[in-house]
Formats: sequence, C-alpha cells, structure tokens
Amino acid sequence: MNAESPKPLVYAEPAALRAAIRAGKFDAHTSGQCPGYAQANLAVLPKDYAAEFLRFCQLNPKPCPILGISEPGDPRIPALGADVDISTDICGYYVFRNGEMTGEVANLKGVWRDDMVAFAIGCSFSFEEALVEGGIRLRHIEQGRNVAMYRTNIPTQAAGRFSGPTVVSMRPMKPADAIRAIQVTSRFPNVHGAPIHFGDPAAIGIADIGTPDFGDAVEVREDEVPVFWACGVTPQSAIRAAKPPLSFTHKPGCMLVTDLRNSQLAVF
Amino acid sequence: MNAESPKPLVYAEPAALRAAIRAGKFDAHTSGQCPGYAQANLAVLPKDYAAEFLRFCQLNPKPCPILGISEPGDPRIPALGADVDISTDICGYYVFRNGEMTGEVANLKGVWRDDMVAFAIGCSFSFEEALVEGGIRLRHIEQGRNVAMYRTNIPTQAAGRFSGPTVVSMRPMKPADAIRAIQVTSRFPNVHGAPIHFGDPAAIGIADIGTPDFGDAVEVREDEVPVFWACGVTPQSAIRAAKPPLSFTHKPGCMLVTDLRNSQLAVF
Repeated sequence: MNAESPKPLVYAEPAALRAAIRAGKFDAHTSGQCPGYAQANLAVLPKDYAAEFLRFCQLNPKPCPILGISEPGDPRIPALGADVDISTDICGYYVFRNGEMTGEVANLKGVWRDDMVAFAIGCSFSFEEALVEGGIRLRHIEQGRNVAMYRTNIPTQAAGRFSGPTVVSMRPMKPADAIRAIQVTSRFPNVHGAPIHFGDPAAIGIADIGTPDFGDAVEVREDEVPVFWACGVTPQSAIRAAKPPLSFTHKPGCMLVTDLRNSQLAVF
Repeated sequence: MNAESPKPLVYAEPAALRAAIRAGKFDAHTSGQCPGYAQANLAVLPKDYAAEFLRFCQLNPKPCPILGISEPGDPRIPALGADVDISTDICGYYVFRNGEMTGEVANLKGVWRDDMVAFAIGCSFSFEEALVEGGIRLRHIEQGRNVAMYRTNIPTQAAGRFSGPTVVSMRPMKPADAIRAIQVTSRFPNVHGAPIHFGDPAAIGIADIGTPDFGDAVEVREDEVPVFWACGVTPQSAIRAAKPPLSFTHKPGCMLVTDLRNSQLAVF
C-alpha cells in the first residue's frame, strides 16, 4: 500500500469547493484550488471594533484591500458568492481573545456571536496568478515554500485602536521582470497592487533579508533584486495589537475561495 | 544695457511656434515650448532606406516609437499638424552623407530630394512632463542639464542595414518613485514606454555611470537607483551605422513640436 496521502482533488468551481469544506470533505490548503478565482484572507471582529478597523483599511488600502464585508451578526457575504457562509466555508480558523491566540476550530458555529462582522481581504494569490501567467517565475512557488514576509519600519496610518508597521512579502526578480511585475500588479489594486519598494532591504527597516519574520526564506541571487509588496499580514498584526475581546482569522493557507474571478479584479 | 540675451517667448500653440520657426523668428531649444504637446525626433532617409528603417522601428518599438511618417518626397506629415512641413518647421538640422555629419542647415530647402521620407519619432519630453506632473522630481531638469545617455550591451533587432546597440537615458530615483515612474511611463508606449532596466549599470554593459556616452552626467545618490529608458538616440546611431548616402536629423534640442497632446498618447 502506498503510504503517501492522496493529493486533494482540484475543484474548478468555488461553490463546489465551499460545499465540500462545509460538508467536512475538504481539509487542505486552498493554494491551487479553483484556478482563476480570487481567494481572500478572513478577519472577524466585534461590531464595536469593526467600524474602526474599516477606517484602518480605508487609510491603508495597499496592505488592507477589502473585497467584502458582512452585516453585523450575519456570516454571509453574498457579494463574494450567493452561498458564502464565513462561519463554515473555510477549512480552519484561529480564535483570538484579547489579541492572544487561544485555539483552532473547524468552523465558527460554536464561537460566533451576533455582533461579529466578517472582513474578506484581498490576497496575493490573485496577482501571483497574473504574474505566472505573464511568464514571470516565482521562486517560492517553484520551491514549494511560503512567501517570505517581513515587518518594516513603514508605519500604517492609525485608526483608533488599529495601528502598527506595514508587513511586506518579498519576491526576488531580475530588474526587467520586476518592471513587468510592477506593470502587472498595478492592474490589481484590490489585491495589494504595485510593490511598495524594491532593492535595499535596510531602506525599509529589514535588517536581514535571509531571516523573514513570517513564511520561509527565499534566496535572492546576484543578478536579482528583492521586490516588496504590502501584505495581508499587516491587518492581522494590527488586529492582534488592538486586542479585541474576541476575533477570528482563517488558519494560514486555508483561504476563503470566492466567486470573484481574478481577471475581474483588474482595473484595466 | 543688459548683456544677457532675452529668454525666448514660450509659445502655447504648436502651429504658432512652427510658423515662427518657418519665418526665422524662433531659433532656440524647444524644451519647455507648447506645454502639453508632444515633441518628436526627426529622421529623414532616402526611400530606398526608409522601408528597411520602418521595419527596424517596428522590431524595436521601445527605442524607436514612430509618431508619424511622410509620403516619399513630401515633407508634410498632416497627422502631426495640418501645416507641418518637415523641411522648414524645425529650427536646425544636421546633414549626414554616408553616415558622416557634413553640416548644419537652417532648413532643408536646398538639400531635400524627391525620394526623401521623414520619420517623426517619439521623445522622452512627453513622459517627463507626465512624471513631473505626477510629482516625481527629475534631477537633470532641475539642474538644467541634458539627460545622461549610455550605449548598452542590449542589441536591437536588426532589419537589413539597420542594427546596433540600444542606447538608454538614465534618471536617478528613490525606489518608491521608480515604481510610480514605471506606472506612469507604461501609459506612454509611443514615447519609449516603461523603463527597460534599473539598478546595476554593469548588467546592461554600462561600465561607468559617471561617464555618459551622450548628454551630461547626473549624480545618483546613496538612496537612489538609476532607472534606464530606451532612448531615441538608438535609431540615430543605427542610421549612422547604415550609412545612407544622404540623411537628415533635427539638431539636438531642436525638436519637431506637434499638434498631438501628450495626454492623447496615453494608452489608458
């Protein structure tokens, strides 16, 4: 008997994948699922914090691009799919109390409250798909690693209890590819958009490019420059620092898969 | 009496400036004239060479973006202005025979031949205007210098007798400004478009950034990177190397001022 676990089926349609997750039949990373469709980061906050967080996202659109928001207490976000239920359609959640992670749950049924507001935040998977389709090679994908992420010295614009440093993801590229990548990602302002820096890591407060704060280290070769995009970990860090009494996020790698096509997110 | 010569009048309308040049009443650099309107490089070649040169430009659109072409023997290019007469509307011309510069003339009346074809080629003045309007400072303009230009080791695609290295212009910028400059200039493919390189000059065969092959040296500061755009000197060099029996160009700094607005050249 083969000891390897089977690779999960690749679903083509987001509604089918969400139904499988809801039924407990899919429990894996969503990377590579439903090609062409946008995946989103999840943040769920009490209503009391949600208005401030929305203002924080509006002030910091590059790290915090909002794809959808639920009504308070309602776990649905119809704009992202008629059937989308935030409390069941992701295959793993982290629960935070006062900014500290207190556990992991398979769905939010037992912890949901009628004052919770869900935010779906754009994710770099969308622009990475456009880059790869554009012929730009992404080393972390080719090597099966997580993208390297770093805290910077670039402050976010604070809103109420939400503030903190911008977190960036880094992809090494030759300059000509970096120019093309700037063009391609500029088309996608709702999924972090154009890079915010390239070249010297120290210029944005990164002491050692070989030691990311999150994700995996990825080599930057002699003829390459590191290119830095604002990253969805920024709002997650801001939420932890704001210490809401209760909050939820997706489990890393287990994203909300939406009915929005990545190509629909392109502004031109 | 003041020994300084008066500054030339700034014309608002290209047709008025061209009329003044035609009448011998304007004889200065065109930089700063007719704000908002596109200025063009001029290349005039015998019909026998023109077809090959057109193919060269088609193969190398970044250094050789064509804004207009005349009919053989006809010095007019109505697409660039109803009255445009290439033989009179530029305030200085260089004459080349077999690729060697043999003289300078005030107009082409005495040297024009009925087999000559004129090419108007896009110029970086158009995208520089967009950059400055976008809040990006350009040191060579602020210091009243010519832009620094370099021969690279990036070959053009050859077409018949036309070939040679790509020549680039360089503007130093901080990375965040360079990202914005890539976005802004990507909108202008008819005036060289996005940069073709940034960072390490040696990667494109430039041995010493402090010693440009054309134009003036411009300092690159510690927190800046040099950003390189394909340059209209590329086709001029290719024409010299092709050694047509007779050819004309504009005198450096004395461009054809067209009725095309720079904003019309933006593709989005």
